Amino acid sequence: MVATQRLQISTKGQGDAQDITERVAAAVAASTARDGIAAVFVVGSTAGITTIEFEPGAIADLNGLFEQLAPRDGEYRHHLRWGDDNGSSHVRAALLGPSLTVPFADGMLTLGTWQQIMLLEFDTRPRQREVVVQIVGE
Amino acid sequence: MVATQRLQISTKGQGDAQDITERVAAAVAASTARDGIAAVFVVGSTAGITTIEFEPGAIADLNGLFEQLAPRDGEYRHHLRWGDDNGSSHVRAALLGPSLTVPFADGMLTLGTWQQIMLLEFDTRPRQREVVVQIVGE
Amino acid sequence: MVATQRLQISTKGQGDAQDITERVAAAVAASTARDGIAAVFVVGSTAGITTIEFEPGAIADLNGLFEQLAPRDGEYRHHLRWGDDNGSSHVRAALLGPSLTVPFADGMLTLGTWQQIMLLEFDTRPRQREVVVQIVGE
Repeated sequence: MVATQRLQISTKGQGDAQDITERVAAAVAASTARDGIAAVFVVGSTAGITTIEFEPGAIADLNGLFEQLAPRDGEYRHHLRWGDDNGSSHVRAALLGPSLTVPFADGMLTLGTWQQIMLLEFDTRPRQREVVVQIVGE
Repeated sequence: MVATQRLQISTKGQGDAQDITERVAAAVAASTARDGIAAVFVVGSTAGITTIEFEPGAIADLNGLFEQLAPRDGEYRHHLRWGDDNGSSHVRAALLGPSLTVPFADGMLTLGTWQQIMLLEFDTRPRQREVVVQIVGE
Repeated sequence: MVATQRLQISTKGQGDAQDITERVAAAVAASTARDGIAAVFVVGSTAGITTIEFEPGAIADLNGLFEQLAPRDGEYRHHLRWGDDNGSSHVRAALLGPSLTVPFADGMLTLGTWQQIMLLEFDTRPRQREVVVQIVGE
């Protein structure tokens, strides 16, 4: 069977991290499947999904890496097109990727104890995000 | 149900980006599934798949980042093995990853308006690429 | 149908790479599915999964990139929390990601000849890893 859940999430702009583990687990629980996968996908090209030990230090470290890789105030060809200021957001998002696939067994996501599912906002302004959780299982 | 589509794509070598969104959408449409996932996977170890706002500026910015991370003319241990010149390609491809999983609902991929599915060639020469689109749904 | 396999893997600490292709292929073969996806997921927040041409040169090159991006002896805010020394591990793992989805058709993973599935250990000490292989297919 397949079940679709759409999460609505408000973010505060670049570097804002949101722990969505409980909401993904709830989507699994709300479905009739016991075993399968949860495909987690963020709609839009300036945010990403990954897992992390969700504590402020690790998140700051990761944001520090992204700032080093694609500085917010750097020069981007993308800015020339639309007058946008979010070239750093596009580069970071394409590198991290919008999708994550987490198995579940016996109704439980197979995450580690210190491993949370995180939405990471890269855009330079607050956004309303939609994250699609597609449950495929039996 | 499961349906397999294999896309054949000619690329022009390192940095060539191809928008394959329409072909993935067509694979979904050609299947009998209304809801599920499209698992997009590039065969080979010197190319990657992600999403991006598919316009030349953003693509140039992303390629600029990869050139900074793994310069084409850098020194690679991989070169010592085969006399290859594509060490940068392997490093970039392993970092970005070959797979992307996109949900679809009611027959439509859940992409954002400015979010396209992109094959990114990292090899130093033109290649014939195969991208497998595996539809799993109902 | 859905079938779950859990691989147990001993690693030697940061930079240790393990080719798990054969074990993923065996999980597919052990299931009754002929066509579908293998969702490969490493449990824990200090390891990653990707594909690579599995030869020592390419692996050394990739580890060299990660050392450049997030040096093992760098300063990390994560260290301040627990007195851990593995801030580099968390950053690298979040960037690479814990999940990879590989299609299979007619019982065969759709990998390239020189494309292997790799578990990459980022933690600073040896670990016992669990990799979940979730088969979804028919």
